[in-house]
Amino acid sequence: MADRLVVVGGDAAGMSAASQARRLRPDLEIVALERSGHVSYSACGEPYYVGGLVTDLDRLVARTPSEFAERNIEVRLHYEVKEIDLDRRVVVAYSLQGKDTLTLGFDQLMYSTGSAPLRPPDVSGIDHPNVYGLRTLEDAVLLRSEAVRGEGSAVIVGGGYIGIEVAEALVDRGWRVTMVTSGDHVLERTLDDQMGSLADRAVRNYGVELLTQSRVTHIKHQDGRQLVGGDSFAVDSDLTVIGLGAGPEVALARAAGIDLGPTGAVAVDDRQATNVEGVWSAGDCAEARNRITGRPINILLGTVANKTGRIAGTNIGGGEAHFPGVLGTAITKIGTTEIARTGLKVEEARVAGFTPVVGIARGTTTAGYWPEAEPVTVMVIADRDQGRLLGGQVVGGRGAGKRIDVLATAIWTGMTAEELAWVDLSYAPPFSGVWDIIHIAARRAAGA
Amino acid sequence: MADRLVVVGGDAAGMSAASQARRLRPDLEIVALERSGHVSYSACGEPYYVGGLVTDLDRLVARTPSEFAERNIEVRLHYEVKEIDLDRRVVVAYSLQGKDTLTLGFDQLMYSTGSAPLRPPDVSGIDHPNVYGLRTLEDAVLLRSEAVRGEGSAVIVGGGYIGIEVAEALVDRGWRVTMVTSGDHVLERTLDDQMGSLADRAVRNYGVELLTQSRVTHIKHQDGRQLVGGDSFAVDSDLTVIGLGAGPEVALARAAGIDLGPTGAVAVDDRQATNVEGVWSAGDCAEARNRITGRPINILLGTVANKTGRIAGTNIGGGEAHFPGVLGTAITKIGTTEIARTGLKVEEARVAGFTPVVGIARGTTTAGYWPEAEPVTVMVIADRDQGRLLGGQVVGGRGAGKRIDVLATAIWTGMTAEELAWVDLSYAPPFSGVWDIIHIAARRAAGA
Repeated sequence: MADRLVVVGGDAAGMSAASQARRLRPDLEIVALERSGHVSYSACGEPYYVGGLVTDLDRLVARTPSEFAERNIEVRLHYEVKEIDLDRRVVVAYSLQGKDTLTLGFDQLMYSTGSAPLRPPDVSGIDHPNVYGLRTLEDAVLLRSEAVRGEGSAVIVGGGYIGIEVAEALVDRGWRVTMVTSGDHVLERTLDDQMGSLADRAVRNYGVELLTQSRVTHIKHQDGRQLVGGDSFAVDSDLTVIGLGAGPEVALARAAGIDLGPTGAVAVDDRQATNVEGVWSAGDCAEARNRITGRPINILLGTVANKTGRIAGTNIGGGEAHFPGVLGTAITKIGTTEIARTGLKVEEARVAGFTPVVGIARGTTTAGYWPEAEPVTVMVIADRDQGRLLGGQVVGGRGAGKRIDVLATAIWTGMTAEELAWVDLSYAPPFSGVWDIIHIAARRAAGA
Repeated sequence: MADRLVVVGGDAAGMSAASQARRLRPDLEIVALERSGHVSYSACGEPYYVGGLVTDLDRLVARTPSEFAERNIEVRLHYEVKEIDLDRRVVVAYSLQGKDTLTLGFDQLMYSTGSAPLRPPDVSGIDHPNVYGLRTLEDAVLLRSEAVRGEGSAVIVGGGYIGIEVAEALVDRGWRVTMVTSGDHVLERTLDDQMGSLADRAVRNYGVELLTQSRVTHIKHQDGRQLVGGDSFAVDSDLTVIGLGAGPEVALARAAGIDLGPTGAVAVDDRQATNVEGVWSAGDCAEARNRITGRPINILLGTVANKTGRIAGTNIGGGEAHFPGVLGTAITKIGTTEIARTGLKVEEARVAGFTPVVGIARGTTTAGYWPEAEPVTVMVIADRDQGRLLGGQVVGGRGAGKRIDVLATAIWTGMTAEELAWVDLSYAPPFSGVWDIIHIAARRAAGA
């Protein structure tokens, strides 16, 4: 009998692993169990489906179960795993639609359950069905069906990436949107204050009422409306959406005896192997190594899920692949303002034992005289002693955001700020100044 | 008496050197001699002034002589240097407007004469005043005054960057434009065939009639019109512009006894020092080191002129700076198609002793389902034996071109294609697929 790989959780990490394992081992039997009604979908695209920029839900699905079937990968939708028995090497799942229970033996197991949105239990009323979240495509369909009403007041609880993208979507739908965050600014976990305040401005310029330093303590429900409140504020809402981050889905792993790491996510080595022979994990539910600090982190990004899933698949398939780590590079936009970041924030750098110095440059995305020139601000963080690049953040108009990739690539290689200031970057008036704004920020971080 | 720096040629390299030397040595006397009527102008912006996107000529001037005067840098416009006497340490210049001759002693000399457009002597009629070139701002004013007529046939001789940008400008002005190049495709010196053919398509899609493999041998002039012809073609023209590249302006250096290198440009070390003590050179007239091959090249780019000028200025000012080399990163656009390149072409890689392998990826600038998704093609060239990245080229819609900077940064550090395939680049649907197109091309070049 052929070896069997069972994939628990069929989104980016799980299905990347399945696909890659299939490429290397045509003989492997592969079964993926997925709780929702879709595999391999783009959670990152959901806000744009809610807002209407993406009209067809199918476009958010990278591959359907029948496309996987063509590759001889069996996908079982609406199956929720309730137990992983490592002694007997079986997974027990039950159908959410029928009533059958499935007991599947495995030789190898891919644990890729992803993450679940946080609903802090100390916020009363947050579990009410009229408080929307956004994770699965089903969530997106539900939220869209409300969003299309397009009138009244909407409240977004949380100022992270999802919060900003849903805020944009709801403004586009015609809602009066209020965003409430406990942070000093939006994206507080990933942007330093100087850059976060630019992001705040972009959010407000898009027509969003932004309340910072405002912790929501209760959501009261009455007649289908909500009152979202805290110590010093209260906002009436016709549509309440939470985006308070998410946490790794580890209940099954914990119960089974798969080790968790210091972050609370599944502990893996750089081959994505857990402590249990033949059991692998990747994506939101697993830890990854921060490339700069060398420490484990739990980072919830589609890019990381795809990469770590592919690494796991190579190793499952008998190859040898090592995940080289993450910087936490991320990007979003609101209106025409692009916001991106990579590496460590100043405080994170300090905690990691560096002495961070900061270079900030303000300029334009193109030559200043180009008609489409837009303001851009770049922040470069480097270590004072070694000069090594540690992080970078970009906020600006069209063409600003993807510049973060230059910083990510430079940080990736251990380059110093001084070195980056001389890299042969491209220039023509429609694209940058003759010294790219990255050069100027790097030079300042180098103290030159 | 204070030491005196004389700058021969006051564009990017010369004035960068002057500015940087001033920062480090407030006491230095600095005099810059410039043949044209402007210093420190953006030659790269001129096509957009011709086409009308830039309406004000002053916007192309980074700094005026009076702004330099405020920094205690004396600029003398319309002074042409006719001799550099290294024994007596004097420069002899004459005024193109008055009749006076100026004999200036120097302690240090910055040789930054730039380049001159090529007008091959074997093309009869090419020296006629009705054949326009584009180098100085005066050239731009002249060409614009013709371009505004906006009717009839224009012929561009040459398919390089200037040719493409002027073609776009003239189409925008309403001309029927024919571009004639001896190359197999446009940008033949900097793009490989596969990518060049994409650039050809963009040129044609913009409404330009493109004749490749067509060497112009004569330009006949009659009644203010031109007949531009070769062995197998002839095109009537009401406005003829040449963009056949340019060569370093080295006549004065050669006459003075400053060494030229194998490329024919001024030989310099990585401090921009020539063979003569206290004589420096930078920009288009000087050689630079190719960072990949280690060999001298003569590369005519504003980015390089600014960087090498700054390096020279630091050393002139008593500091210590070393130019880390060039990759030849360049970018342009026609219409909405962006074209960029860096590093070695396949054939150049072969000549340099590498065994190039090529990875090509076709995709979209954003997530495929994003409404503004545009096609993009990325080519990555790596060495088969070491895996080291050698070059890259990008052609695609809005957002494509500046991705070249990721390749340039990766090549700069000596990264392999396999390493680049895992770098933590940013992703959100408005900006890329979850695997950036750069990742996919790099993975293919790595043979993975």
